[in-house]
Amino acid sequence: MSLTIKLQLSSHYRLNLNLGTCLKENNFTPAYNTKIRPKPIYHSDPLISIVYNNKPTMHASKRCVQSSIKSSLIEPDGGVLVDLVVPESERAARTLEAETLPKVGLTEIDLEWVHVISEGWASPLKGFMREDEYLQSLHFNSLRTKDGSVVNMSLPIVLAIDDETKERIGSSTNVGLVGPNGDLVGILRSIEIYKHHKEERTARTWGTTEPGLPYVEEVITPAGNWLIGGDLEVLNHIKYDDGLDHYRLSPQQLRSEFDMRQADAVFAFQLRNPVHNGHALLMNDTRKRLLEMGYKNPILLLHPLGGFTKADDVPLDVRMEQHSKVLEDGVLDPETTIVSIFPSPMHYAGPTEVQWHAKARINAGANFYIVGRDPAGMGHPTEKRDLYDPDHGKKVLSMAPGLEKLNILPFRVAAYDTVQKKMAFFDPSRAKDFLFISGTKMRTYARSGENPPDGFMCPGGWKVLVQYYQSLQAEEASQQPAVLSA
Amino acid sequence: MSLTIKLQLSSHYRLNLNLGTCLKENNFTPAYNTKIRPKPIYHSDPLISIVYNNKPTMHASKRCVQSSIKSSLIEPDGGVLVDLVVPESERAARTLEAETLPKVGLTEIDLEWVHVISEGWASPLKGFMREDEYLQSLHFNSLRTKDGSVVNMSLPIVLAIDDETKERIGSSTNVGLVGPNGDLVGILRSIEIYKHHKEERTARTWGTTEPGLPYVEEVITPAGNWLIGGDLEVLNHIKYDDGLDHYRLSPQQLRSEFDMRQADAVFAFQLRNPVHNGHALLMNDTRKRLLEMGYKNPILLLHPLGGFTKADDVPLDVRMEQHSKVLEDGVLDPETTIVSIFPSPMHYAGPTEVQWHAKARINAGANFYIVGRDPAGMGHPTEKRDLYDPDHGKKVLSMAPGLEKLNILPFRVAAYDTVQKKMAFFDPSRAKDFLFISGTKMRTYARSGENPPDGFMCPGGWKVLVQYYQSLQAEEASQQPAVLSA
Repeated sequence: MSLTIKLQLSSHYRLNLNLGTCLKENNFTPAYNTKIRPKPIYHSDPLISIVYNNKPTMHASKRCVQSSIKSSLIEPDGGVLVDLVVPESERAARTLEAETLPKVGLTEIDLEWVHVISEGWASPLKGFMREDEYLQSLHFNSLRTKDGSVVNMSLPIVLAIDDETKERIGSSTNVGLVGPNGDLVGILRSIEIYKHHKEERTARTWGTTEPGLPYVEEVITPAGNWLIGGDLEVLNHIKYDDGLDHYRLSPQQLRSEFDMRQADAVFAFQLRNPVHNGHALLMNDTRKRLLEMGYKNPILLLHPLGGFTKADDVPLDVRMEQHSKVLEDGVLDPETTIVSIFPSPMHYAGPTEVQWHAKARINAGANFYIVGRDPAGMGHPTEKRDLYDPDHGKKVLSMAPGLEKLNILPFRVAAYDTVQKKMAFFDPSRAKDFLFISGTKMRTYARSGENPPDGFMCPGGWKVLVQYYQSLQAEEASQQPAVLSA
Repeated sequence: MSLTIKLQLSSHYRLNLNLGTCLKENNFTPAYNTKIRPKPIYHSDPLISIVYNNKPTMHASKRCVQSSIKSSLIEPDGGVLVDLVVPESERAARTLEAETLPKVGLTEIDLEWVHVISEGWASPLKGFMREDEYLQSLHFNSLRTKDGSVVNMSLPIVLAIDDETKERIGSSTNVGLVGPNGDLVGILRSIEIYKHHKEERTARTWGTTEPGLPYVEEVITPAGNWLIGGDLEVLNHIKYDDGLDHYRLSPQQLRSEFDMRQADAVFAFQLRNPVHNGHALLMNDTRKRLLEMGYKNPILLLHPLGGFTKADDVPLDVRMEQHSKVLEDGVLDPETTIVSIFPSPMHYAGPTEVQWHAKARINAGANFYIVGRDPAGMGHPTEKRDLYDPDHGKKVLSMAPGLEKLNILPFRVAAYDTVQKKMAFFDPSRAKDFLFISGTKMRTYARSGENPPDGFMCPGGWKVLVQYYQSLQAEEASQQPAVLSA
């Protein structure tokens, strides 16, 4: 099959988009300011079936109003949003203390987890898991809290150390954490060291132990044979100085943002790929459906994952640029959309991981979560098939312990409708009219400079991808050994 | 180290033991009748720490009293003990119906599961799992019931079929189940057929996918690529005609037995090995502890597993004979002990399986469960180590969802104390005095005809084992090719 349709969509909408946020003492502006509001694009396809309580809940329970965290839509897990950043007034003393402690070195991915834990994405988790938490996570995908209630926790959030570090820690109760660049990052208190059963962790998290799982190869295999759990304190907010920190709103900041906008529903969309018009279709359709249900001001949290991703995924900076073009091109409505970065690393652990993705968004204040086909999935590392049954993600998510208060919005598969010449929900009665454009196919288009079918992605967003892949090719060409270029 | 100590313990107690039960229209006698009551043997070692509510509960909640099932100690999971055996009056009609349906053939192990489900050991499960139940079991080790409560369910209880059987079933809603000997066993109604993801099932259940897991090799690998779930009806009580059926008390029969004995506590001991004096020590000590806690009549449910076990485990009939000798020899008190067979097959899935073992005993009316080192564990199939961390079983069990109402009794390791010349709780302060006699070592003794250290096992019980291993050797010798015997 040859596809030579040129991308002819022009940008119908122009807007001055400033995808940033200015944080000053708990007051911050929206993540972008719109000058021109583009018309929303709606489609009439049936989209969602809401699994749990699908009545609009205008106000949450009394318990959810915390001192500085208004939680008008959904209570954080455990009732209180965890915040482990040491107050300014105590920073100097804690830094001095940390300096005296045995040190544990963090990798870049460990630091991403420190970021995640310290801002409360994993509430009520207050540090790297001790063995009790690790075992509950591994076996039950949930934690029992002190009051007997259950919160979801499907991924073990753990810190590995090697034999030498364990030896050095000796009988110390607390340790200092040192970032990859040598900076003191924080303290882990009342530590517990226990065995890192790598094979079992991998099997129970991914449902396979075959070689080639990105997180396993990058993180688990090279890690030490021990895990160290404890209560975390972070000396400073984790920043990356990559020009994207303004996108990294904490759960507390997101909650304030939703309150400021007087959102009466927040629907989160997790992604690690460029946004195509199929994604946009379902996000816009979700909004429409929420309005039909009686919500007055549903807000979309477009929430790309910002931590570790596998080598062939599109890098974060390129994705953020692509997302900003999608808003500029008017495919999504900036007035009702917040773009922010979710700082977690990616596991590619399918049904196990999608629970984490949803749970973290509860803590960020989202009360609706959109889930599609094969969330957090990938190809099997050694066999020619999907690693997970593509329907298991949404099924597991809809039954997961601790997620009962979240409205799960499963959606049907979107594909390119060659008749309508746009992305549409797949209609099995005329299957031959639909073209499935996989991530691999999309990358092949972009790499070859060939345009995807008209209507697959907005022109501005597509251009960003093409430029990225061309720069990759240029880089690859420059790295060819001289003998081959002769 | 050479061990030549002869077994010199004589049988101090004699009793006429009839390990049987006579079932007549819901009235049945105890599983054995004692003529002489042996003195209980108590030890003073500290034994148990009770994790959950450790106050004597003399009466359970009001909800637990079912029509014919008095549940004075602990309510079955889901509130009602499942009983899927077709009433006598309907048997003929259902048999006729089953004959008209597409047939699914059962293996011997499938039939063991039919037995388990039909008698309510897996209450509230009413048949082989449909996909929703399978996924909850695999990911959460628990099932959410219709009323929103959670019951434990750590092992997928599933029935596999191959492509050809799936084809033959077609669009039929119900199927007939046919036992390995060709007999009609029952009906599975409102069926659902879904994919059998064998690798994922294995990884999530065992925490490894290495070759050599007995249940995987025996059951999963040869099984079909589909699972069939549905509501089970069984035409007749499952019987084995192996001379041991009188030991196979159903949960309902066990509950009646406990009521008849006016037990105010029932503590279950799961085992798949011969009973040595270390086991006896902790069972007797548990009883002592329960008496100290204020219980007046604690009953021990000595509950050997009767389904599939791996090839080098001691077969059920030999174990039952050994257990009966242990009672005859007075190592356990027959007046306060019920010996019965737990019909489940063995998974050797450590922390995942121990939950099943405990949960099934809730349904049988036990409100205390004894758990030791590395329950349901085995050696790693390809590495020289235990497959599971030996402490994980009791940790996972004590935190498992749906088991909150069960009192978990962890015990310390028992070993042979060479100073006291008896099995005793291991004292790390004089570690060198203790001898660990593993199952492998025990088998080596029995196989070679050598006696284990004095006090390791009662003489009657030991004799049963020696005879078994000698018969095995005789059998092996008779199978040697003639050239080798020359």
